[in-house]
Amino acid sequence: MPKYMDVHDGFFGVTAEELRAAHDADLAIEGEEGVHFERAWLDPEAGKVFCLATGPSKEAVMRIHKRAGHPTPEVYELSVEV
Amino acid sequence: MPKYMDVHDGFFGVTAEELRAAHDADLAIEGEEGVHFERAWLDPEAGKVFCLATGPSKEAVMRIHKRAGHPTPEVYELSVEV
Repeated sequence: MPKYMDVHDGFFGVTAEELRAAHDADLAIEGEEGVHFERAWLDPEAGKVFCLATGPSKEAVMRIHKRAGHPTPEVYELSVEV
Repeated sequence: MPKYMDVHDGFFGVTAEELRAAHDADLAIEGEEGVHFERAWLDPEAGKVFCLATGPSKEAVMRIHKRAGHPTPEVYELSVEV
């Protein structure tokens, strides 16, 4: 199953609880697209969130994030990992 | 120990072997700054590399990457993880 990293901007000052709630919103519906969000990391000073996911396509990852309320156009397919 | 994500641009068409070599160059000297690069992921079509690291500071991570031949100004401190 391909792996993806997506990047979100503008999450300045977001708390751990808020990131958890956003991640839970993804987890609640991800199965409908065969996606799984493994982990999310936040830099609240830079407003950046990175999500590591698996799924059938980049578009499936984008659709889940959009439906969960935090769309991003920036999704990368990670074909190489070391 | 704080965790960091750094992002590199311009790695278009890089192979698994080349990413491994770049990662090994980090691993060879990372101990000198108390840094550890846990993982690196590549999207060769977008030319993006993401590295997950631990270390004492963002600057320490940047110094190792610079000395290993692949500097980047884009390093984020991941104070929250879910």
